[in-house]
Amino acid sequence: MSTPSLSARPALLFDLDGTLVDSVYQHVLAWREALETEGIELSVWRIHRRIGMSGGLFLKALDRELGRSLGEEVAERLRKNHAASFRQLWDQIRPLPGAKELLTTLTSMRVPWAIATSGSEQSAKGPLGLLGIPDGTPIITRDQVAYAKPNPDLFLAAAERLHVPPGDCFVVGDSIWDLLAAQRAGALGVGLLSGGYGSEELVTAGAYRVYADPADLLGHLDELGIRDSG
Amino acid sequence: MSTPSLSARPALLFDLDGTLVDSVYQHVLAWREALETEGIELSVWRIHRRIGMSGGLFLKALDRELGRSLGEEVAERLRKNHAASFRQLWDQIRPLPGAKELLTTLTSMRVPWAIATSGSEQSAKGPLGLLGIPDGTPIITRDQVAYAKPNPDLFLAAAERLHVPPGDCFVVGDSIWDLLAAQRAGALGVGLLSGGYGSEELVTAGAYRVYADPADLLGHLDELGIRDSG
Repeated sequence: MSTPSLSARPALLFDLDGTLVDSVYQHVLAWREALETEGIELSVWRIHRRIGMSGGLFLKALDRELGRSLGEEVAERLRKNHAASFRQLWDQIRPLPGAKELLTTLTSMRVPWAIATSGSEQSAKGPLGLLGIPDGTPIITRDQVAYAKPNPDLFLAAAERLHVPPGDCFVVGDSIWDLLAAQRAGALGVGLLSGGYGSEELVTAGAYRVYADPADLLGHLDELGIRDSG
Repeated sequence: MSTPSLSARPALLFDLDGTLVDSVYQHVLAWREALETEGIELSVWRIHRRIGMSGGLFLKALDRELGRSLGEEVAERLRKNHAASFRQLWDQIRPLPGAKELLTTLTSMRVPWAIATSGSEQSAKGPLGLLGIPDGTPIITRDQVAYAKPNPDLFLAAAERLHVPPGDCFVVGDSIWDLLAAQRAGALGVGLLSGGYGSEELVTAGAYRVYADPADLLGHLDELGIRDSG
């Protein structure tokens, strides 16, 4: 009798900002600065709740809150100014506790893993550089898919790159956009508190389990049924 | 037959950072910078969850997480460096939407209100200046009481200054420390999402009602049974 493949060999698909690197608050303040340059005042907590979703959808949600359309030209300037402000904060950014150890452990356990971020290749470069990721690791950025989170495309592409069906993957993320995208991809979502969301918000968005940060997840891999398959 | 005084004339006791002014994320990054100057790495979300509590208790909680005591000298430097870093971010800080209108409306409705913050007089000065507060408004800062939140002292002092029993007050705050202090003061707590906590966290800490921000609270004063008593 065969068992479902998830049981034998689950894969992990990681979000980047707030999940592996401690960069959410810098993204928040970079968006705030970009918005204010355009004369748009938006409370910081509202920006925080949008981090991790597609930049295009963020700007659409912003249109709704402002009650008018910003237009493509302003949207493009906002994106550029956010990227520039964020780059100035790169040197403040650190890996989250346990992130490197978790990835190294998974590699040595021969558990397949990948990274899938709503950020562009350009803005992911800094955070990724902190993690010491082995060559050949599948990294899916915004540039490689048609739609970012909460669409499932990033995680579907990551699963495909690992040659693992999405239903045999755990998506690990800190934002509700990761968890909604996980559901759409047909994967189970694991929430981390390290991006600043509360546990209940993550559970409400579909988290199967919630841990504090990568170190806490590393200490509880058994709860996901992840065994050394080496 | 007499009715309880809360029914006739409730007072509102406001927290400051995250409740009336959009300053929580700046406090978070100022603490992060101060901690890193001392060689202490603490994830940003963990700092966020401590904002609004007494600085002394924050440092005690930090001792627990680090597994060692920082000592009074380091603690004093951390406090000073946080204050200096925060001051550099003052020009980024804005009133939250509806904050000024809410306070003006309460004044014109003759509803007594006061502000009670865990911050020092020094660090509250900048944020308070943005609100255009009328002379004579009771402002209770850390310097005026023995213990800050989650102890009830700040709110008890504010209620006393208004000559209103604490049980006839609503405490309005964005952090769980406000809501825990409200319970200890024997007041009902109203949570605002504008400091970045999720709704469920605020309800779990005892919030009687939760609103998005001061503008949302202003639009729902009827839900608190607040009437024009002029």
